[in-house]
Amino acid sequence: MWSGGSKPRIGFVPTMGYLHEGHASLMRQAAAENDITVLSIFVNPLQFGPNEDFETYPRNEQRDLSIAAENGVDLVFMPSVSEMYPRKVLTKVLVSDVTDRLCGASRPGHFDGVGTVVSKLFHLVQPDRAYFGMKDAQQVAVIQQMTDDLNFPVTIVPCPIVREPDGLALSSRNVYLNAEQRAQAVVLSSSLAKAREWMKDASLTPAALVNKVRAAISEAPLANIDYVEVLEYPALATPEAEAPFHRTQQRYILALAVKFGATRLIDNELFEPVEVNGNV
Amino acid sequence: MWSGGSKPRIGFVPTMGYLHEGHASLMRQAAAENDITVLSIFVNPLQFGPNEDFETYPRNEQRDLSIAAENGVDLVFMPSVSEMYPRKVLTKVLVSDVTDRLCGASRPGHFDGVGTVVSKLFHLVQPDRAYFGMKDAQQVAVIQQMTDDLNFPVTIVPCPIVREPDGLALSSRNVYLNAEQRAQAVVLSSSLAKAREWMKDASLTPAALVNKVRAAISEAPLANIDYVEVLEYPALATPEAEAPFHRTQQRYILALAVKFGATRLIDNELFEPVEVNGNV
Repeated sequence: MWSGGSKPRIGFVPTMGYLHEGHASLMRQAAAENDITVLSIFVNPLQFGPNEDFETYPRNEQRDLSIAAENGVDLVFMPSVSEMYPRKVLTKVLVSDVTDRLCGASRPGHFDGVGTVVSKLFHLVQPDRAYFGMKDAQQVAVIQQMTDDLNFPVTIVPCPIVREPDGLALSSRNVYLNAEQRAQAVVLSSSLAKAREWMKDASLTPAALVNKVRAAISEAPLANIDYVEVLEYPALATPEAEAPFHRTQQRYILALAVKFGATRLIDNELFEPVEVNGNV
Repeated sequence: MWSGGSKPRIGFVPTMGYLHEGHASLMRQAAAENDITVLSIFVNPLQFGPNEDFETYPRNEQRDLSIAAENGVDLVFMPSVSEMYPRKVLTKVLVSDVTDRLCGASRPGHFDGVGTVVSKLFHLVQPDRAYFGMKDAQQVAVIQQMTDDLNFPVTIVPCPIVREPDGLALSSRNVYLNAEQRAQAVVLSSSLAKAREWMKDASLTPAALVNKVRAAISEAPLANIDYVEVLEYPALATPEAEAPFHRTQQRYILALAVKFGATRLIDNELFEPVEVNGNV
């Protein structure tokens, strides 16, 4: 909390609300590193496709405000759709290349909506630092690219994925899962754990890793794979499929999107470069 | 000039250099209205088409720095192309609708480059006010739209066109004209002066005005018309061609682009709404 004096440092946590412990960890980190912590809650229609869950996306403003107050937030910005988009949207911020794959391919237009709304929020809040969870690793890559390309005076702070005790990554959409789906949804994080073991084999290729992960996910009968991809991070370029990973020079991301019924869950694991003679 | 204390107000004049009295008038207005005046000089390759004059666009850095110093500029930002675009440009700021006509139609991609570079400059300079000449009236409309849509914390200040004694609007590209072209180039401003008279006829239609202006320009044998258009301002929507102007409710712009040899000149006149019982 800021108590006056020179220009305060502003930490910013942009969210779509229905806050969980993943968001709370971003708020606490922002509060620890800045004088003023701003939370935005805005379910952005621009980043939902026509057949996606904009209307039914879970909302609970009163609970959100309590969670914000308990986790060091000084100011909540909760605009209406008509305040954010008072007229036809004529200006868009478009990021190419890093938006071509993963959720960019599965959700056409999604990242155009993300780039545009994050630009608006950065201009309205004028933060020094903005905090994003690595569960949406591609979103972090897109926003970092946009911030660099357009010289936004904002430091992007990626924060670790927060998980349930059984490994399921926290998501506002987890509430959609029925009991059976919820039990099987652990297959995303357990497949990533297996992948960490498989990656210890220096001869493993991207194609082989993807095949093994697809097989592991398919052991859950309700799981319907949207994508399993391994890419260079943060450029999200495709590695050579049949050559072993360049583990000493390159960072990779293994990213999953899996549907359970109508509910689409995502998760990912980053593989940092390994020491030349060391293990992972 | 700012002498310390609370946060200074920053006035910003973005230019492509080769400064003339039109730019100087923007600098003086910025200096009068702000604590610190920043001038940028950057010939932006992104807003030139492949067959346009990026390479040959006139440059004179030493003279520009003298003009800046004489007109109240505190700080000149003069980045290289590789500083502004250190790698492939993956992020673009695109404005639609207001970019469809006039120079947007004649110069495809031009306003994508303008929106992107102005976004970068606004983030780097972080001005309170930015000053733009109305000679590029469509550019002012595009930047105002972008600023509103993306909530840039910047006030856009449109400034009047500055002209030579014979009426020719000042432009860095006027230097390209030979003596004969320069003499005939006055036809742009003289046609706009005639249009002011014609607009006093309440029965005049947009189609009739355009025809009369085209005929007036064609009296100059070296003039090669790119466009003559009359539009609503600042939306740049097309009025009904064959109905009289709605002069009491609507603002209009008459915009011209005319080539003399390879040199393309633009000029325009804004018609403000008239009093219900009054004259123009």
